[in-house]
Amino acid sequence: MPVHHPRPVTIAVDAMSGDRGPDVVVRAACTALERHPDLEIMLVGPEDQLGECLRNNDAEASPRLTVSHATEVVAMDESPREALRKKKDSSMRRALELVKEEHADACVSAGNTGALVAKSRFVLKTMPGISRPAIVSAIPARGGHTCMLDLGANTDCTSDQLLQFAVMGSVIAEDLFGLSAPRVGLLNIGVEIIKGTEVIQEAGRLIANTALNYIGFVEGHDIFSGRVDVVVADGFIGNVALKTSEGAYAEILDILREEFTRGPARRAMALATRPILNTLRERLDPRRYNGASLVGLRGVVIKSHGNADEMALGNALDLAVLESQKGVPGQIGQRLAQLLPDREVP
Amino acid sequence: MPVHHPRPVTIAVDAMSGDRGPDVVVRAACTALERHPDLEIMLVGPEDQLGECLRNNDAEASPRLTVSHATEVVAMDESPREALRKKKDSSMRRALELVKEEHADACVSAGNTGALVAKSRFVLKTMPGISRPAIVSAIPARGGHTCMLDLGANTDCTSDQLLQFAVMGSVIAEDLFGLSAPRVGLLNIGVEIIKGTEVIQEAGRLIANTALNYIGFVEGHDIFSGRVDVVVADGFIGNVALKTSEGAYAEILDILREEFTRGPARRAMALATRPILNTLRERLDPRRYNGASLVGLRGVVIKSHGNADEMALGNALDLAVLESQKGVPGQIGQRLAQLLPDREVP
Repeated sequence: MPVHHPRPVTIAVDAMSGDRGPDVVVRAACTALERHPDLEIMLVGPEDQLGECLRNNDAEASPRLTVSHATEVVAMDESPREALRKKKDSSMRRALELVKEEHADACVSAGNTGALVAKSRFVLKTMPGISRPAIVSAIPARGGHTCMLDLGANTDCTSDQLLQFAVMGSVIAEDLFGLSAPRVGLLNIGVEIIKGTEVIQEAGRLIANTALNYIGFVEGHDIFSGRVDVVVADGFIGNVALKTSEGAYAEILDILREEFTRGPARRAMALATRPILNTLRERLDPRRYNGASLVGLRGVVIKSHGNADEMALGNALDLAVLESQKGVPGQIGQRLAQLLPDREVP
Repeated sequence: MPVHHPRPVTIAVDAMSGDRGPDVVVRAACTALERHPDLEIMLVGPEDQLGECLRNNDAEASPRLTVSHATEVVAMDESPREALRKKKDSSMRRALELVKEEHADACVSAGNTGALVAKSRFVLKTMPGISRPAIVSAIPARGGHTCMLDLGANTDCTSDQLLQFAVMGSVIAEDLFGLSAPRVGLLNIGVEIIKGTEVIQEAGRLIANTALNYIGFVEGHDIFSGRVDVVVADGFIGNVALKTSEGAYAEILDILREEFTRGPARRAMALATRPILNTLRERLDPRRYNGASLVGLRGVVIKSHGNADEMALGNALDLAVLESQKGVPGQIGQRLAQLLPDREVP
């Protein structure tokens, strides 16, 4: 068997749009370059400011870490439409253009989600057969992970869009989790065929008609149950489900902390059980799951959490490397053509 | 201050519709009668079968536990429309009629949710100013509970319905949690005013225009954060959020079990920490939160989980007692008249 050499990857990182400023981006980039010897990173933002960041972090000498100039920054609370119209020399837009112009394989941004979706659509365009990009991420579940989409790019979806999400989610689960024929479920409020809105019922019929491994409707608790690999929902439902699960996890860690600090005997026990609680915290650490993919575009775009720290940003960069190496956009195109051959390209 | 004597309450219990059969209902009824000396319970179902259940549980002698005859049972998978049209002598319908005819203060059923919503609307009717009943329940949150509605009665909601839910949820939080001016939030995918669908944006404007203590949009994680007392959502979103949180909790208990059984040292530790884990399990035990209210009707209707055991059913019965004593439907009517005085009654 031939040894597989991962191909070199270049990532354009929007260094300016997160909540924490460019310093943490530079540090995350440096450690990512250590982890991936074939990786190159282009930091996008004002040359002066980023040059100083590089000097401050003793990183100005690396030939694999360069700066690409952009003068503007999209604010976290800016309306996506305004950002699209006015911020034409923003670090976010420039990073996407580097992918479009094939100077980079992937774009990573911790900026305003709505603006990133709007600018990605505008700069990179969606794949043939895809109407709108979707946000997809891995969620910790029994025995591994569940891949859920859309997590908030589209508040209202047609049944055809949900079908497109099913195809894209399936490709992501194959490429990122190494599954063959991942089990695809449609998020609903009951598993019976009569449940839910007309859009969801129609989407169920459309997905069942493909060669995807469709298991039918799933419910909120199935996201974590291990009985489904890809959970399809519109962006409103998906976003609520994601944030609800994050809230439930945070609440439980809080209760544990509270219970383990009631009186000295329990505090001693907490010390003894610390490794277990640390494992729990680690397994559920949202930073481990940082990096959601915008799929359906002609290029790899990774959205990092706005408040991501160095470790969290590192995970988003790793995801960008993996999706670039796997060629996710191309795979999605192929799969669409296979599964929906007769489809009119919108 | 005068001593408050709770007024006597009669509950009509649909003894036939749950997954576990009437025996568990009889046992739960017996222990509820012990807890509430002023309570009377009417078990609704086939006289013969329920008579035998009472004898088997040595409960046939209690003057506060009687049987009301009904021949039919609504199946768990029956379509609500069919159940409404065909099952006119069902235990579910008869229990609702006992409330309608003022023989009982409240109806409790562990049956088919859709059928219970449909039959409740048909038999009891909604309050003036309320278009459709909603399902509301308490969810464990930081420092107490959050009251969330709708949990699945209405898959699509208008902004006016969301406004009605806000009023009803506020009354429930006052009566059941003893809060004055509970904080009401509208579940959305971001707290910024531009987020979400048009229906939600309009609902936000409507609720902000009332004298309710409206705090604006909240997100999935806020359900558990303790920063909101009443979370308003349409029945699809609410149901997904509820089941997602249940799934997340179950997943965490699973991880803890797994971590505490890795090797003998950890198993010994699990033994020592058992009280803490039991507290955790107890605080999150879905049985403790069994019993969701159908609000907006001219009478108290409590939906128990279909698979409820004796303890869980007991909690649903306790909730029925509390809502009857508080006179929740009357309170909702008053609050609607106060908050929305100019409103046209639909």
